[in-house]
Parts: sequence; structure tokens; C-alpha cells
Amino acid sequence: MMTNTLNVLRDIFESTLDQQIRYVMTPIEMLKPMLYSLKNGGKRLRPLLLLAMLEINSMDDVKKGLRSAIALEYIHTYSLIHDDLPAMDNDDLRRGQPTNHIQFDEATAILAGDALLTDAFVIIAEDDLLNDNQKIRLTQQLSLAAGSQGMVAGQLKDIEAEKVKITLEQLAQIHLLKTGQLFIFAAKAAAIICNLPHDVAEPLEIFTHHFGTAYQIHNDLMDVLGTEEETGKKEQGDAVLDKTTYPAVLGLDGAIEALNTELNTARQQLTLLTDRTGKNYTGLSYFLDKLVVERGDKS
Amino acid sequence: MMTNTLNVLRDIFESTLDQQIRYVMTPIEMLKPMLYSLKNGGKRLRPLLLLAMLEINSMDDVKKGLRSAIALEYIHTYSLIHDDLPAMDNDDLRRGQPTNHIQFDEATAILAGDALLTDAFVIIAEDDLLNDNQKIRLTQQLSLAAGSQGMVAGQLKDIEAEKVKITLEQLAQIHLLKTGQLFIFAAKAAAIICNLPHDVAEPLEIFTHHFGTAYQIHNDLMDVLGTEEETGKKEQGDAVLDKTTYPAVLGLDGAIEALNTELNTARQQLTLLTDRTGKNYTGLSYFLDKLVVERGDKS
Repeated sequence: MMTNTLNVLRDIFESTLDQQIRYVMTPIEMLKPMLYSLKNGGKRLRPLLLLAMLEINSMDDVKKGLRSAIALEYIHTYSLIHDDLPAMDNDDLRRGQPTNHIQFDEATAILAGDALLTDAFVIIAEDDLLNDNQKIRLTQQLSLAAGSQGMVAGQLKDIEAEKVKITLEQLAQIHLLKTGQLFIFAAKAAAIICNLPHDVAEPLEIFTHHFGTAYQIHNDLMDVLGTEEETGKKEQGDAVLDKTTYPAVLGLDGAIEALNTELNTARQQLTLLTDRTGKNYTGLSYFLDKLVVERGDKS
Repeated sequence: MMTNTLNVLRDIFESTLDQQIRYVMTPIEMLKPMLYSLKNGGKRLRPLLLLAMLEINSMDDVKKGLRSAIALEYIHTYSLIHDDLPAMDNDDLRRGQPTNHIQFDEATAILAGDALLTDAFVIIAEDDLLNDNQKIRLTQQLSLAAGSQGMVAGQLKDIEAEKVKITLEQLAQIHLLKTGQLFIFAAKAAAIICNLPHDVAEPLEIFTHHFGTAYQIHNDLMDVLGTEEETGKKEQGDAVLDKTTYPAVLGLDGAIEALNTELNTARQQLTLLTDRTGKNYTGLSYFLDKLVVERGDKS
């Protein structure tokens, strides 16, 4: 994937998001806290991953997937707002800016999160470029990924894990639910939007599964290795909360090794997909390259 | 509507809900706080209203609507859990029982609400008795009714109204969003499930609109007139919060008069529907009769 293509996809995403917001009937006092978190400089990783998978098929599929990408970002944004709340992670800063409940108040932040979560399903239901079957399958997969069998369960398990010592398997399970499911949704959405055959959809899903785990290990490593400037939050927030992280369970070297294993398995899927389709799936390795941590980074 | 029919509908609803829960893949620690609020003796007013409208068409339509009725109750239950939070109404009791965040903790209550909200869309998407077009229209109407253009916006406006004096029009607008939209959804869902023609769907919607306003005025009146035993919460909670209520804006007699006007308008729709379809829509007046407040009740 050329950086150029990603910049184009990012621009299309941002302008479609702005247009989407412009035509919404939401009262201004409700829209304001929603927009505050939607537009605070997020990397758009999840929607870009989805759009990049669609772009390999065609630019027409990118267009068809734009609203699903926005819905995905709505869900991710809601989860950050609720995760930052005093009753949860109690974070005052997100990407170097005051979190939603600091900028507004707790009640507003809870409601802004609720609204973003609910509106994600409006966005898919009102998508004119997809047929009803695609829309209902997207709704099903997104709600499964985000709900009591997915992300929310992961967040609850994560909070409970703060109090006890957990195994590597339990840690992986927590993050598969909490972080992984939304990445895997991106692959499932791409398959639904492009009508991908099973032998393409499956390795694409496996790719996002391992990408998601790699992303979480990378995050945990950055909390240990990174500075506040890089991560946009106070250093070692997770360590303060005594959360079980990959470096805590595996050690620093072990965590880096686990990260590399995940990245390699993910890369193998891209090679397989390229061989199987004749299309350039290895371009998606851009997302993996971003997660590489050299042992030298420890210095 | 015979009380007998409603008892049958309530039994079918409860057993379908139990079955629905039995087959869900949600981890037990997540399911527990969800079930606590789902099964704490709610009146099931919204799902019963929907099922009663379907029953006028046929018992087959009742069956088709059961999962939508459950989804509606999930949304209502989530809204109660979040409304009760310390940052919102800060209620310790709901229906005479500890609220979700008192029974568990605040983080769990936020997540249980998030999960119920999200899972409502799983339930509709996985409904085998409806076609894709029906499912996507139900998803659209439910997310619109509950999201940033509906219930959540109403809750935000309600909190803001605590600080200032508002007009009757603003009060009506707040409650149309906060309470009314879910009742109106019941009518919209009935129309989608039964494929009702426009000249039946429209008066049914108007009926639920006026029923919703009557319900809210009745609630406000009960806060003034009722006892803790009847309302299941500490007396005059809304007055303590200095919320603007119908009795506060219109006086006690004025509020009772406004209630009667709403009930009459709602009744007129039922007569019109019965004339137009030859079916017994006047049976729905059961729901209106429950809201009648006699002036003698003031004693």
C-alpha cells in the first residue's frame, strides 16, 4: 500500500464524515460532545484498514464501504469516551486533549458515547449504496463485535483482570474481545461489501485477528517504552492501574518476540491472499510495518 | 383489550426472553448485570404495547414481532441503567430494588447498559421470522428513536432543563424525545411487521405519540400525588432535582386537564382505526385507562 493511496483514502473518509455530520438532524447541544471526540485527531486506523481492504478490490467498493467505515469509527469513538470515564480508566487526557468528560461533564460524556454507539446503526441502515442483505449482515457483525459477546465483554473482563493475576491465554482472550473484534469486523465488512468468496474472506479475517493482537502488544510495549508525547497520555497509565499487560506477563523481550510472531502470521495471510487472488494484498503490510518494535527501541 | 389477552402476551414475551437469554454466547460475568436489570419486575409496557398492536392483526404477527419487542425492552432497560447513574439522576432504587450501579458498581452498570443497547441490534439482525427489508427498517427506526436524534438527545435536554426555567413547548419536546420516541417506535414496528397501509400506520403512530405524552404527564402527576410504595422510588425525586414537570408548569389541575386532552386524542385514533379496518383497535384503550387520574386522587 502506497502512503499516497492511504492519504487519498483518509481524505475521502474525512470529507464523507463531514458531509454525514452536516445533514444529521441531531440537536446542536448533543452533536457538540459527539463531534469533540470524533474530530480530535484520531488516526482512523479501523476505518482506514477497512477502506484499504476495499481499495484492493476497487475504488467502487471503497465508495460503497465509506458509511460502514464511519459507523466503525463511531463505535470506536464511543468506546474511548466510555473507557476514559472516572468509573472506568479515569483518564483526563486522550491524544493530548482533555477527555470528553473533562471537556464537558460526566453525564454528557456518557450520553455522547450512547449516541455515537446508537447512531452507528442509523448510518448503516440508511446507507443507499448497499442492498438490504448487506446492510443487515453488517449490522449483525458490528453489533456482535461491539456488544456483550465482543468489545463490551472485553472491557468488563479487562477491569476485572486489574484485581487478579491472569494467564497469557486470558490476556489474549480479553484483547481479542476488547480490541480484536473491531479489527476482525473490518475484514468481515470488506467481505460483505465486496461479496468476497470464502477462501478470500477467511485469510483476510485471520490477517485482522493477528493484526489486532500485534496492535495490542505494540500498545502495551509503547506504554512501557514510549513517552507521553508519543502516546498522548500520561506515561504508564496501565502500569499505575496494575493492569496485566503483555510485557508484564512475558517480559520485554518475550513481548517483542510475541509481537513478531503475530506480525509474521499476519504477513503470511497477505502473501496467501495475493497468490490466491492475483491482487496486491501485500500492500496491507503497511499497517504491520507501523507496529514493528526493534529491540534498540528499548534504549 | 381483555386483560386475559395481555396476560397471554406477557407470558409469551417472558418465555421468549428467557429462551433468547439461554442461547446467547455472552460471558456469564457480563450477562449477570444485564439480567439483573432485565428481570427486575419491569411492567414490559413498551413490548406489550407493540405485541397488543400486532395481536389486533393476528397471532402470527405477534410471533413475528417477539424479537423486536425484546429488542425494544433491551433499549428501554439500558436507558434506565444509564439514567440512574450517579452522574445522571443518581438513583439508588428502581422498582424498590437497588439500581444496577448500587448492586454491582458504576463501571459494570455503564457496560451493562452499553451491552443491552448494542445487543438490541443483534436481536433484530438475527430474527429469522422477518425478511431483510423488515429487519433493516426496524433497525433504522429503533436506532433513530434511541439515538442522537431521539431518546439520548431527550435525556441530555432533560438534564440541561434542570438548571433553567423552560416553557410547556420545550417540556413537551424533551419528553417527545426522551420517552415518546420509543412508544412511537412500537407503532412503527407494528406497521413494518404487519405491512400496514399508510392510512392505518399513521393514526397508530399518532395514538402512540399522544399515549407517550399522557404517560409522561401521568408519571409527573404520580411523583406529586403518589407514594413511594406506588412509584417504587423515593417520593418527589424530580421535585428534589428541581426538574420542570407538567404539574410545575401547568399546576395540578392544568396537568390533569392536559392529561385528559392527550388521552382523548389517543382514544379518537383508536375509534378511527376501528372504523377504518373493521378490527378492534379500541381494545388498546386498556393502556389509556391505566393513565386516568381522577381529581379525587389528590386527596
